[in-house]
Amino acid sequence: MTTQTPIRIDNLQYANWSPELFSEMAEAGLSAVHVTICYHENFRQTVENMITWNRYIETHPDRLMHGRTGDDVRLAHDTGRTAIFYGFQNCAPMEDDIGLIEILHQLGGRFMQLSYNNQSLLATGCYEAEDPGLTRFGKQAIAEMNRVGLVVDMSHSADRSTFEAIALSTRPIAITHANPSWWHPARRNKSHEIIKALTDQGGMIGFSLYPHHLKDGSACSLESFCKMIAEAAERYGVKSLGIGSDLCQNQPDSVVTWMRNGRWSREMDYGEGSADQAGFPDQPSWFEGIRDFPNIANGLAKVGFATEEIDAIMGLNWLTFYDASFTEAKP
Amino acid sequence: MTTQTPIRIDNLQYANWSPELFSEMAEAGLSAVHVTICYHENFRQTVENMITWNRYIETHPDRLMHGRTGDDVRLAHDTGRTAIFYGFQNCAPMEDDIGLIEILHQLGGRFMQLSYNNQSLLATGCYEAEDPGLTRFGKQAIAEMNRVGLVVDMSHSADRSTFEAIALSTRPIAITHANPSWWHPARRNKSHEIIKALTDQGGMIGFSLYPHHLKDGSACSLESFCKMIAEAAERYGVKSLGIGSDLCQNQPDSVVTWMRNGRWSREMDYGEGSADQAGFPDQPSWFEGIRDFPNIANGLAKVGFATEEIDAIMGLNWLTFYDASFTEAKP
Repeated sequence: MTTQTPIRIDNLQYANWSPELFSEMAEAGLSAVHVTICYHENFRQTVENMITWNRYIETHPDRLMHGRTGDDVRLAHDTGRTAIFYGFQNCAPMEDDIGLIEILHQLGGRFMQLSYNNQSLLATGCYEAEDPGLTRFGKQAIAEMNRVGLVVDMSHSADRSTFEAIALSTRPIAITHANPSWWHPARRNKSHEIIKALTDQGGMIGFSLYPHHLKDGSACSLESFCKMIAEAAERYGVKSLGIGSDLCQNQPDSVVTWMRNGRWSREMDYGEGSADQAGFPDQPSWFEGIRDFPNIANGLAKVGFATEEIDAIMGLNWLTFYDASFTEAKP
Repeated sequence: MTTQTPIRIDNLQYANWSPELFSEMAEAGLSAVHVTICYHENFRQTVENMITWNRYIETHPDRLMHGRTGDDVRLAHDTGRTAIFYGFQNCAPMEDDIGLIEILHQLGGRFMQLSYNNQSLLATGCYEAEDPGLTRFGKQAIAEMNRVGLVVDMSHSADRSTFEAIALSTRPIAITHANPSWWHPARRNKSHEIIKALTDQGGMIGFSLYPHHLKDGSACSLESFCKMIAEAAERYGVKSLGIGSDLCQNQPDSVVTWMRNGRWSREMDYGEGSADQAGFPDQPSWFEGIRDFPNIANGLAKVGFATEEIDAIMGLNWLTFYDASFTEAKP
């Protein structure tokens, strides 16, 4: 069975998964979703989360399949399913063991952030006061990730570490979920210089729909978001752009507290929020959940993108990146 | 049963433990030894190492007892035994969990390095190219270590991180095993400025007998070592000085490879050694093992120290530090 709809990919979600949301993926026409498997979980706990996902996939064969390569996206598309790709928003699952990089890849891991807000064993997070760049371990970890095909993701990392990762990695890297700071200056958004270096190297940026990353926050308009993408296309070219919605649909506020505080803090860290806005912010009205994914395509058309460009941004650019990134490096 | 011998403490050993070495401790008159329990071991593995030690202590009640406070040293001394204090040369056993600091203390942990050569989640190690100082997590960890009575040890940390730890810690910290770089400029030895800041704050330095830390290495003379201590006494006062021999008696070379490479490196890291001297260096002739501990006292006498000063450096200074450091902070 083939379908005429284009391939759509959301390259970052962390929803409170359920059969209802798997149906919404189908409704939204998503052929692939890169799902976050862990934030602060160690190896064993991450494997537990993988088992949870493996069971979802096993018990929803009409909706889901496990994604490991670009071709799996095509197969999912041809059979009306969503290919699920596992990713990690921190290097916590590899603990202090470089050998776990290959193991995590064998288990389906395809993206791994080198740090999440804080200093990690590999690189600095964007909430640290100082950024010394990649550590000794970090440099070796990138080489190993390049070897096995686990993509370096610097979404939550600090600037110098990001520049160094772009320069050191022999394969294109990704910022799976962030927006340009020239559109909305937030700590998690990225400077022109970083996005330029990233995309010049062949890397991808996935635009985020998380309100703290949006101009005017929850009140951000679809037009403003799509105009930002239009300017990004002018600056960096269409081929490096995709979507990584950072959607945390149906998650309770305890989840964002876990993301921000993990096990490391005895004080309350509010991250991008604040004491009086401690929980998840409201999503913009035009992107309240997975079903609204097609709205972005409509918005892109309204700001003047051609159909081919829209298809590229909404999925095909990520597919090209998947094709190049997830298998062992050629010798 | 009381004994007339003074209290002697070696505040850092990592030997290949055996009943023979427990006898040597008695022979050397050691009332306390701070033993390294782990380098790169995670929490569970560190607990396993503690269990090994708990069994040693249980099965050698004539020789050993578990040391938790300064008074345990006095009891061990009065009963002709050696009190064993557990310590960690890295923050690996607390993983990413600030709650494990109290747990490790409850299990007997009394010293913990914030980093071991590399960048850790808390602080920078002395082999990194850059030292950004304490991390966000590191600052919270020091406060928690201060609260429960787990001593901050910066022996393998980089300079800025060490200065910041000295400044931030509300209780005196330690450099359990290192020598002044003004005597022997090695990467692991410490500058005058660091030792001055440390000792001004009430902290202790334990002088190391590890050949890479010694002037002339394995050929270092006892006189040279003791003259170094005499100069340190002039610069910093006798009361901040002790011994932390860093003795790795009977360990195979695979152990130093583990210390240097852990699980993080796919290349061979030689640390203070080199490809043609990859293993443990030979100990100086006057400090080949635990039994030679009294030689240091003789050497100190020869360079002019009074008996009272020798007793302070050889054990009583550490005892005073133990008394002040190992119990919960007074509110």
